[in-house]
Amino acid sequence: MSEAVLEKPKDRVSYHDSVEEMLVRIRDDGLSSVFSRFDEQEKIRCKFCLQGLSCQLCTNGPCRINEQKGPEKGACGIGPDAMAMRNLLMRNIMGAATYAHHAYEAFRTLKETGKGNTTFQITDTEKLKWMCEKTGIDTSQSINEMATCLAELLDREMKVNPDQHSIMVEAFAPKKRKKIWHELNIYPSGIEHEVQNSIASCLTNVDGDYVSLAKKALRLGLSTIYTAQIGLEMTQDILFGTPKPHEVDVDMGIMDPDYVNIAFNGHQPWIGAAALMKAKTKEFQDLAKQCGAKGIHIVGSIETGQELLQRFEMDDVFVGLMGNWLAIEPFLATGTVDAFVMEENCSPPAIDQYAEKYQVALVSVSTIIGVPGTEHEMPYYPQKAEEMADKCIHIAIENFKKRHGKIKPMVPRHVQKAIAGFSTEAVLNAIGNDLQNLVDVIAKGQLKGIVALANCSTLRNGPQDWNTVNLAKQLIKRDILVVAGGCGNHGLEVAGMCNLDAINQAGDGLKAVCSALKIPPVLSFGTCTDTGRISMLVTALADYLDADISDLPIAVTAPEWMEQKATIDGIFAVAYGAFTHLSPTPFITGAPKLVKLLTEDVESLTGGKVALGDDPVEVAEKIESHIMKKRKAMGL
Amino acid sequence: MSEAVLEKPKDRVSYHDSVEEMLVRIRDDGLSSVFSRFDEQEKIRCKFCLQGLSCQLCTNGPCRINEQKGPEKGACGIGPDAMAMRNLLMRNIMGAATYAHHAYEAFRTLKETGKGNTTFQITDTEKLKWMCEKTGIDTSQSINEMATCLAELLDREMKVNPDQHSIMVEAFAPKKRKKIWHELNIYPSGIEHEVQNSIASCLTNVDGDYVSLAKKALRLGLSTIYTAQIGLEMTQDILFGTPKPHEVDVDMGIMDPDYVNIAFNGHQPWIGAAALMKAKTKEFQDLAKQCGAKGIHIVGSIETGQELLQRFEMDDVFVGLMGNWLAIEPFLATGTVDAFVMEENCSPPAIDQYAEKYQVALVSVSTIIGVPGTEHEMPYYPQKAEEMADKCIHIAIENFKKRHGKIKPMVPRHVQKAIAGFSTEAVLNAIGNDLQNLVDVIAKGQLKGIVALANCSTLRNGPQDWNTVNLAKQLIKRDILVVAGGCGNHGLEVAGMCNLDAINQAGDGLKAVCSALKIPPVLSFGTCTDTGRISMLVTALADYLDADISDLPIAVTAPEWMEQKATIDGIFAVAYGAFTHLSPTPFITGAPKLVKLLTEDVESLTGGKVALGDDPVEVAEKIESHIMKKRKAMGL
Repeated sequence: MSEAVLEKPKDRVSYHDSVEEMLVRIRDDGLSSVFSRFDEQEKIRCKFCLQGLSCQLCTNGPCRINEQKGPEKGACGIGPDAMAMRNLLMRNIMGAATYAHHAYEAFRTLKETGKGNTTFQITDTEKLKWMCEKTGIDTSQSINEMATCLAELLDREMKVNPDQHSIMVEAFAPKKRKKIWHELNIYPSGIEHEVQNSIASCLTNVDGDYVSLAKKALRLGLSTIYTAQIGLEMTQDILFGTPKPHEVDVDMGIMDPDYVNIAFNGHQPWIGAAALMKAKTKEFQDLAKQCGAKGIHIVGSIETGQELLQRFEMDDVFVGLMGNWLAIEPFLATGTVDAFVMEENCSPPAIDQYAEKYQVALVSVSTIIGVPGTEHEMPYYPQKAEEMADKCIHIAIENFKKRHGKIKPMVPRHVQKAIAGFSTEAVLNAIGNDLQNLVDVIAKGQLKGIVALANCSTLRNGPQDWNTVNLAKQLIKRDILVVAGGCGNHGLEVAGMCNLDAINQAGDGLKAVCSALKIPPVLSFGTCTDTGRISMLVTALADYLDADISDLPIAVTAPEWMEQKATIDGIFAVAYGAFTHLSPTPFITGAPKLVKLLTEDVESLTGGKVALGDDPVEVAEKIESHIMKKRKAMGL
Repeated sequence: MSEAVLEKPKDRVSYHDSVEEMLVRIRDDGLSSVFSRFDEQEKIRCKFCLQGLSCQLCTNGPCRINEQKGPEKGACGIGPDAMAMRNLLMRNIMGAATYAHHAYEAFRTLKETGKGNTTFQITDTEKLKWMCEKTGIDTSQSINEMATCLAELLDREMKVNPDQHSIMVEAFAPKKRKKIWHELNIYPSGIEHEVQNSIASCLTNVDGDYVSLAKKALRLGLSTIYTAQIGLEMTQDILFGTPKPHEVDVDMGIMDPDYVNIAFNGHQPWIGAAALMKAKTKEFQDLAKQCGAKGIHIVGSIETGQELLQRFEMDDVFVGLMGNWLAIEPFLATGTVDAFVMEENCSPPAIDQYAEKYQVALVSVSTIIGVPGTEHEMPYYPQKAEEMADKCIHIAIENFKKRHGKIKPMVPRHVQKAIAGFSTEAVLNAIGNDLQNLVDVIAKGQLKGIVALANCSTLRNGPQDWNTVNLAKQLIKRDILVVAGGCGNHGLEVAGMCNLDAINQAGDGLKAVCSALKIPPVLSFGTCTDTGRISMLVTALADYLDADISDLPIAVTAPEWMEQKATIDGIFAVAYGAFTHLSPTPFITGAPKLVKLLTEDVESLTGGKVALGDDPVEVAEKIESHIMKKRKAMGL
């Protein structure tokens, strides 16, 4: 029997007090926010769009489908299932291509660093060698030569087509999965090829078959993880060091208005990392002090912040992470931010009003950014990273002169501790570099299973992070370890779920494991881009046991997915063989055959499937039940 | 003063009698068609979608904007102009990526042919050498080596990134344009890079600035033409011969039910060309005869049909072109088609009902196709082209046994003559290989100017091809030569506008020119993929005169654009510097600043702009007025 459904608080729009407090100021100052605009949109939602039954691709449209009252098909003849799946695949493609773009920036940065043309260094030479060994690159070369070769190989891998062979997929896919993927014809080519093939399929009058479209999504998901994400995360490790657990500060209380505060926002660490090095120099600190500031602070914002948090210790200059994307507007409203430096999502389009009201310099360091009100635009070239970082600091110092003493700061007092920086290596290290120790605690039932939580933060299914935090609480209570990435992870950090105090909220078995290993019950694995990194841990476990992914007592959840990268991560998980919970429900409810395919039938193909549900207790029960089923099948 | 607006016929849904006749059968047989489904959709059109003010990208949505009543912004904060432009850019991206996919198939076919691994030959060695010279490839190599080198270069060109340099853009862009494109930061990289950069920009919370998004569209348009389209068309010329004008048969009257009829549908000529060679062999003709057929007929369907029509003479086996995409369902309803072989759009999703009712075997020869009811699926590999062609013929013969004598054929009697196969080379040939002869007739005013008409066919702005045919009539009456590509071109061919009789409908000046040169007043330049080919003629004229594109008395029109490739062709034309008429009006009318940018302000940047209007007379007047303005500025 299910426990009572967890009631959503009616008086809150966020799990976090800091956000709630800042929203009062925002309202008083007459600004709109995602929170207020979401409420406005609630009044005029399109039911066709919500069901996936609206198409605006061509001029014979826009079309809508209503199976009861008609029309039953679009003008071209497409049915509801294919229309909804094509809409979903287009979003998957957007997520995949954006990961590919991030990977492209990573590989060119590694390449130019190998050539000695950047301000960066090869930091983790062991990982570089390991990657070269995995991909067949000669390791007798110099470090820099290896780096250049690896960068070139990873870039080529994104371009692999069906006439060629992917080294990365072969090297990183779980042993038992490859055969299944070949049989289903979803063994992927490089991401650039799969993106192109998928887009061409989505054109008007090309692929109108929901099963065919769904298979393309599965293949695209695999391609994303193996030919883009894993390579890019390993590249970032090579450049900036593999994450190691360490204590950090999070939430908006980290802001000090008397400093020159530069926030790095998006997903890509290049300019943030370069600026951090520069901000630590006496030269720049003195420059800030000459302008009346106490010094320079580098602030991590959303995913870029997490990338920095994973790899850099906090100190006098690097002060921590402000929260996740829904906290951006509240963060800017503190009146403490001098430069908001953006390179990917989420860089919300209406922050110009905040920039003006609270005197923030908006800076773009990527060709993809186009935020209105951005004063400073610098396309990223790895060779120019140092120069770009310098410029960011100068911009921030100039802004400080205009902000400090003129804009009244308002800083919520909340600061939370979190242990950031988990990785496969860190977990292995915690268990004495022997996977058998992990297997033992699972076998004993102290740890029932592991859930990967990777996603965003949304208002659709309740207050910000309410679903994410409560689901995590429900899972750890059931002795299920949570491994987290993405904006959801930042929410968990801010909510205090990623520190050792949270062990008290875990069930007895997990409590014992976490206490013994001195790890939190929710392991902060980084960003949504670390989905690949999380899968590497699971793959290691599967290969160690000579089991398939779908046999393991694991699951995936995206309890507050919002955007397109989350959709491709979710689709990957299904192809990977995982029970994959998605909330909110994707826009497919008007497509009954598609819903059945994704939530039932696909299980007989990949072993994975989509599970739906917006209540944390109910979802936790479903996940626990799935994990117990898998344990039983394994004889545990 | 404007002439009276041309009244649309109320009793017709198509310009073509053959389509009208077949729709009676379709109705009587109880099937739906694009025509009937379009009417159904007319009842429930979404006004937000029509205005570009609906977004379904993320779970904080779906959002809608209503500037009068609110909400004024999406939940994320995006405004109407950026929302509409992002929607449009996503469609541009789809078109661009699909052209890139076609180009990818072309280049791998050329490469494998160069290696001797396909059934194809290098047919136009002169063009191969010319392309090698243009791109800096050593022409002292063997033909096959040159072909392989060129294929590899063209494939690399699609992947050029901002750290590299595009050979194709440098080689083919108009001389005077390059500086402008550099200054506007729209000088393009390779299409695969631009697609990726554009998609990553369209993600939720990345580019929320309509000007920035519009510039990305312009750059993507240029990239599409120079790094994909021109290379792919030249590759098809090298493989199958550069088009030369010759008389062909079009319209549905070409069908003979007593033959095994195989129709090739889509855009890509590979399997159609291979099957044509095979069908001409005594072996296969005899096989068909043994089954009671009079023989085998190869039928061109839409763009693939035009690709074949451009390059192959009609004979006992190749019988011509059936029409454009809106004629596909009527064509299948003739009960004469044995195999309908598909590889790109338009392969409409609801033709399974036709396949069943009229006994047609649906065959896919591309990974991107996903038409429900497709019995035979063969992913394309150049090495397997011959085997695939054989299989198509066998499938058709088997189908003939089930169809002939069992399905009552109904073939409209209409057959029209057209002169297909114009190209830059053909035009130069017609004018004695001296551009001065073309300049002279323009200078004398016999030819006021040239309009490129490239697009689809849609029902949004009237009966099928009604707008296209009537606009062409209005233009030639005004002594403006029409150069046509795409489904609109097929409509013009079927309507009798591409033969020498049509000269009588031209104004006196154009009549004299056409009569002297023995060319029709509407030159059939092929498919929408030939937009690049058409631009090569215009570029040659501009460079000959040492003029910029925007100085020439030319214009572009897409009087019935329907899908996403048409949108990127249109955007290219604006970046190229052309006055670009689009009908129907794109879904941007809810975005006033964007409309102003595209229809007015962009002219001061690129010299091109978008012109709107759904009435052929009014549009022809606008185009003539633009051309006269340019003539005047040139001192003509």
